[in-house]
Amino acid sequence: MEIERKFLLIAEPPGLSGAPRHYIKQGYLVATAGREIRLRMRDDEYFLTVKDGSGLERSETELAISKSQFDTLWPLTRGHRIKKTRYLVPWEGLTVEVDVYEDDLAPLRIAEVEFASREQSQSFIKPPFLGTEVTGRREYSNAHLASTGLTGK
Amino acid sequence: MEIERKFLLIAEPPGLSGAPRHYIKQGYLVATAGREIRLRMRDDEYFLTVKDGSGLERSETELAISKSQFDTLWPLTRGHRIKKTRYLVPWEGLTVEVDVYEDDLAPLRIAEVEFASREQSQSFIKPPFLGTEVTGRREYSNAHLASTGLTGK
Repeated sequence: MEIERKFLLIAEPPGLSGAPRHYIKQGYLVATAGREIRLRMRDDEYFLTVKDGSGLERSETELAISKSQFDTLWPLTRGHRIKKTRYLVPWEGLTVEVDVYEDDLAPLRIAEVEFASREQSQSFIKPPFLGTEVTGRREYSNAHLASTGLTGK
Repeated sequence: MEIERKFLLIAEPPGLSGAPRHYIKQGYLVATAGREIRLRMRDDEYFLTVKDGSGLERSETELAISKSQFDTLWPLTRGHRIKKTRYLVPWEGLTVEVDVYEDDLAPLRIAEVEFASREQSQSFIKPPFLGTEVTGRREYSNAHLASTGLTGK
């Protein structure tokens, strides 16, 4: 079970430019309210991920797949794709994942923080570079962004 | 694009008992009207298949996966599974696939015939062991049978 909170970014976090990063492209085979099935290329690795549920806690099953398997399924995600660079920014013992979106979604930037427990997530004090919390807001989910873009941008 | 017709079986086709066969178990990660994503074990081979559309012609993308990949995803199909033995019965230059269902779905038996063209499918003369045509009837689709059983059995 993942416990994550998600925020809009309102300033550049200290250390962003030197932070480790991944180039990510992902597409959705399915994105219903109950179940998402996602293909992801992260640098030179490939994954198929099934996510169930919504909101703060979701269950996730991730499977490493080959480039060839990825290439076979990728065409089926047409119209439901995003590209982003993910920066891994250390912050007080946690890692803030900052996603910088490309193409139609630029200049959207969203930060996610993953916690070890519900208690830890509740006691988290937001650093000044994080703005409005959008945890569980469907219009900021990657599945939604991949299908319809950012509503009202 | 697959072109298939599907029939209920009303008698045992000649040659069934000696016909080549596969033991199949399959489960659905997703089964909406528009897209099905299926895991299948066929003897000792494993597949992930995405089917789009419905009725006589459907597009299908099939991917060989490892047993380990299958085992990771299989729990996510709980409640949406079927087991069957598929017999490959030769009939006048075509192959009739006879599926004999197990467990709750027994003694259901369904035959599928795949054609090279729409014309060939239309000129097909039904042999006497085939009964009611159920092509495109949702209640006889494997995805539906896997989720709800045979309605009205």
